[in-house]
Amino acid sequence: MYEGVVQGLIDELGRLPGVGPKSAQRIAFHILQAEQTDVRRLAHALLEVKDKVRFCAVCGNVAQEELCGICRDVRRDVTVICVVEEPKDVVAVERTREFRGKYHVLGGAISPIEGVGPDDLRIRELLTRLADGTVTELILATDPNLEGEATATYLARMIKPMGLRVTRLASGLPVGGDLEYADEVTLGRAFEGRRLLDV
Amino acid sequence: MYEGVVQGLIDELGRLPGVGPKSAQRIAFHILQAEQTDVRRLAHALLEVKDKVRFCAVCGNVAQEELCGICRDVRRDVTVICVVEEPKDVVAVERTREFRGKYHVLGGAISPIEGVGPDDLRIRELLTRLADGTVTELILATDPNLEGEATATYLARMIKPMGLRVTRLASGLPVGGDLEYADEVTLGRAFEGRRLLDV
Repeated sequence: MYEGVVQGLIDELGRLPGVGPKSAQRIAFHILQAEQTDVRRLAHALLEVKDKVRFCAVCGNVAQEELCGICRDVRRDVTVICVVEEPKDVVAVERTREFRGKYHVLGGAISPIEGVGPDDLRIRELLTRLADGTVTELILATDPNLEGEATATYLARMIKPMGLRVTRLASGLPVGGDLEYADEVTLGRAFEGRRLLDV
Repeated sequence: MYEGVVQGLIDELGRLPGVGPKSAQRIAFHILQAEQTDVRRLAHALLEVKDKVRFCAVCGNVAQEELCGICRDVRRDVTVICVVEEPKDVVAVERTREFRGKYHVLGGAISPIEGVGPDDLRIRELLTRLADGTVTELILATDPNLEGEATATYLARMIKPMGLRVTRLASGLPVGGDLEYADEVTLGRAFEGRRLLDV
């Protein structure tokens, strides 16, 4: 539809997740009208990420050095590891400021449909980290969906015999939500997990 | 939140139109996991567009040469010009295959709120094109909103005295739409513009 290079850019943008043909076109025209330096900066940021970012040798989080900032941070509690699926989950947990331990990023969740088995996740690396007995609690913070639950169950079964405290994040009603709009599974979990009010 | 360059990329992506913080994060992680060659191709497409694309010297559409493909095409009817706001509107009209004339891209619409006046649009260039009398009809295809209507009215008042046929695209119910969901302005226009059925 468009002349060569414009269509080329629209095609490339359309391959990004969550960017449909209309958005791709909108972004392409924004680029056309943007300052040359702004576009250079974006192109540079794209290349730089591929060039400089790797995955932390210990936890699998994104890192710019051999180890990520959290693994390098000596003030963090080394006795607790929070297991998550993706690096963005690390950021989500960090945002709560509730957790001061270390992380382990699996790189996904077990999903037979997508052909992801335990061997495709960083489970062996997790077991290596648990070997010396420093870690006393493992918090399983995989997603509260089918794949995340399956992964948590798989890990719990494997690790509990090692004598660690293995916990899972609570399921329940989202804070600020509306009871009547909660799906039945969430509401069921909220009942299961009900706690005594100390008043 | 993220280490240096990842956050840098998220920030850059977040400046694109329609890309919120969540989408920017999602795209950044997609980039992190994408093939190096794919990311290079995207970065190259961004730079190439800035490098190679300019605006047609005659109509203002995007072009890779002095003139755009439509202005170079000798099979197009030179007696009709369709006036649009943006290059993407050219593509929208082309898609209908209803129009075989030439275009004129204004580069926006008159909008006092956004500080866009007639002098900021390619109106002088349009008048130059009309000067030799080749063009007999001007179709005003600016957007059917406040700014587009104001621009069309402004152009019509300026150009009608030149003896040209000046037309505006019909307003009315979108084809395939539902009468009950049409807003009152559109429905009002559809009444105004009602036509005799020849049966």
